[in-house]
Amino acid sequence: MDFNTLNDRRGTFSTKWDKMERGFGVSPEDGLAMWTADSDFPTAPCVIDVVREAAEHGVFGYSWVYPDYLQSVQWWMKTRHNWDIDTDWVLTTQGLGNGIALALDVWTKPGDGVVIFSPVYHEFAHKINKAGRRVVECPLTRDGDTYNLDLDDAQSRLTGDESMLIFCSPQNPSGRVWTTEELRELAAFAARNDLILVSDEIHHDLVYTGHSFVPMDIAAPEHRNRMVYLTAASKTFNIAGQRTGNMIIPDPELRAAMNHRLATLDYSPSALGIHMITAAYSPEGAEWVDAQIAHLDANRRTFDAAVNAIPGVRSLPLQSTYLAWVDFSGTGMPPADVAARIRDEAKIAVSPGPGFGTGGETFQRFNLATQHARVEEAGRRMQHAFRDLQ
Amino acid sequence: MDFNTLNDRRGTFSTKWDKMERGFGVSPEDGLAMWTADSDFPTAPCVIDVVREAAEHGVFGYSWVYPDYLQSVQWWMKTRHNWDIDTDWVLTTQGLGNGIALALDVWTKPGDGVVIFSPVYHEFAHKINKAGRRVVECPLTRDGDTYNLDLDDAQSRLTGDESMLIFCSPQNPSGRVWTTEELRELAAFAARNDLILVSDEIHHDLVYTGHSFVPMDIAAPEHRNRMVYLTAASKTFNIAGQRTGNMIIPDPELRAAMNHRLATLDYSPSALGIHMITAAYSPEGAEWVDAQIAHLDANRRTFDAAVNAIPGVRSLPLQSTYLAWVDFSGTGMPPADVAARIRDEAKIAVSPGPGFGTGGETFQRFNLATQHARVEEAGRRMQHAFRDLQ
Repeated sequence: MDFNTLNDRRGTFSTKWDKMERGFGVSPEDGLAMWTADSDFPTAPCVIDVVREAAEHGVFGYSWVYPDYLQSVQWWMKTRHNWDIDTDWVLTTQGLGNGIALALDVWTKPGDGVVIFSPVYHEFAHKINKAGRRVVECPLTRDGDTYNLDLDDAQSRLTGDESMLIFCSPQNPSGRVWTTEELRELAAFAARNDLILVSDEIHHDLVYTGHSFVPMDIAAPEHRNRMVYLTAASKTFNIAGQRTGNMIIPDPELRAAMNHRLATLDYSPSALGIHMITAAYSPEGAEWVDAQIAHLDANRRTFDAAVNAIPGVRSLPLQSTYLAWVDFSGTGMPPADVAARIRDEAKIAVSPGPGFGTGGETFQRFNLATQHARVEEAGRRMQHAFRDLQ
Repeated sequence: MDFNTLNDRRGTFSTKWDKMERGFGVSPEDGLAMWTADSDFPTAPCVIDVVREAAEHGVFGYSWVYPDYLQSVQWWMKTRHNWDIDTDWVLTTQGLGNGIALALDVWTKPGDGVVIFSPVYHEFAHKINKAGRRVVECPLTRDGDTYNLDLDDAQSRLTGDESMLIFCSPQNPSGRVWTTEELRELAAFAARNDLILVSDEIHHDLVYTGHSFVPMDIAAPEHRNRMVYLTAASKTFNIAGQRTGNMIIPDPELRAAMNHRLATLDYSPSALGIHMITAAYSPEGAEWVDAQIAHLDANRRTFDAAVNAIPGVRSLPLQSTYLAWVDFSGTGMPPADVAARIRDEAKIAVSPGPGFGTGGETFQRFNLATQHARVEEAGRRMQHAFRDLQ
């Protein structure tokens, strides 16, 4: 387990490092990549072993989604989330984004409204728009450091042509871990409005002490007939490049519809991805994830202490995820000036808050899944870039 | 380069070895797997190196379809096939089957006729049927050991609702390498009937001395506006499990339509697959492929000599591919009896000829991409199983 050896991902075709100059104008020469949501850590040793063995075997022929894989997913959900699933419920996708796109393709039609609660993972709106559906953006309310759902407000924004709700739990970018009661109310809202509820639970494994992730399926099992759960080992184990995720669908009719679509598209995941996830969802993998959470917890404390020391800057205390959600509204600076300082003075590539929709205007999202020394460096750079505010 | 060390793929989640009992009733204990089209060889050392380096780096984060990859595809097509392509033309898919499925999805509608020439790769008809389109099967004619196109006959089978032609070049299962003139006539046929022509060229790298593969794009460039070329490193380098292939589309309008579909489905290939193919399409990779062809050539000579010694059995001389196409009609035995002997006495799992459509009734397809000793063993087993015919 190695979370602190400084590695160099530049020149490895890492989107985060090798595209930051093009995307954000931050040179990899002396820049810090803290935008796209992958980690700088090597994955768990048990996963690396699988790749090493694959190289030794050398044969990369056809494989399939075999029972051991499905059982490892089942084991993980039970052991880590107290969630009982049938292996039959598990369909494989190319990951979260592909899962959302497929859900839109199967259960909505062009022009339909699709409900999201903002600020939220920017790809929700992108995918809805790309598919020719209509984004129905319902802002979360903010009470100090906490975001909340306002379902009455959301109800007032619906026009009746909505067919789907895409929800993020735990929430990206705020890290909010929703309670059973909140999830139940949301599920009832979906039922009242006859919406398919796509629950993006991809960040479920990275939750900090004191908070407890509740799978939507446990909170509101009575609404299973409209539920599609998206999970993946990609964030948890830093294997997003393998492009393999799960779509967990308890309802037989919904599942048959998606299975048919996957079959007509002749979708099949990479064999090595399947092997890696099978190894990841194991006791050894769990141990590594626990160590990672402890590491991330230290990272966020260091980072929050540094940036919260800048007057007017507030990094919201994370309940989950390695994505710090930092509000610069208290500085009184125009968001463009904030962004320019982070880019040109701190030389950090971050995910701009406005991309997350309404409510993100004054924010920047910092990816803290890196070596502790880099997080310390980011804190120092931020303090220096905003030193005139001290 | 290692084509002859006897390896054991059983228990590695190899479809070919680990599903042969379930699929064909041939036990892996003492059976030979000669059905699904992957090889038993370790891939090229330059490709294995990439996997080994990935294990050492350990970070499997986001990547993208980067220019080096596209340039390696371009280099390969130019160097190996004298085919000039623009890197812009190259879209990535999950491989051939996914490419066909996407082409059907984008350019045909439910109920449309889709033309294929049989006997041909069974997945063509499966995918057409699965997508709710109609298979328009046009039999190839057979002149001794050679299959030919009969476009007059094909024309007579069309009813006017056809929108696509899926063609296999070089041809699976017969190994036929089509001439420039044949390809030109086929392209003109597609144009006359206003069909999108999907040219499956996945076997283009494995062609034997004396035959020369011609890319459809070189044979009939004037019909580019209806052409979709499917290629992959999967057969050539035995990396089908990585589920990555290319769809090469010169026409800007067709390409835009497919790009839009790929974007709405949020399709992105496995990073490691992209790295592996980039390494494969190289001078080192080419050298390995040349050695592989020599090995396969020896295999097919050994196999053909053995089975052709059985009265009434004819393994058609291959112009390309590692898939021996063996006609048992001369034995006078019912096809079911032939299949039972191969399964129960020779204990070889093969691809049944009838699955390839009209013209395949009396055939069995044997995958020869294995160690030479296994091919010799297969020959001995076949002679023994049919010893009463001697």
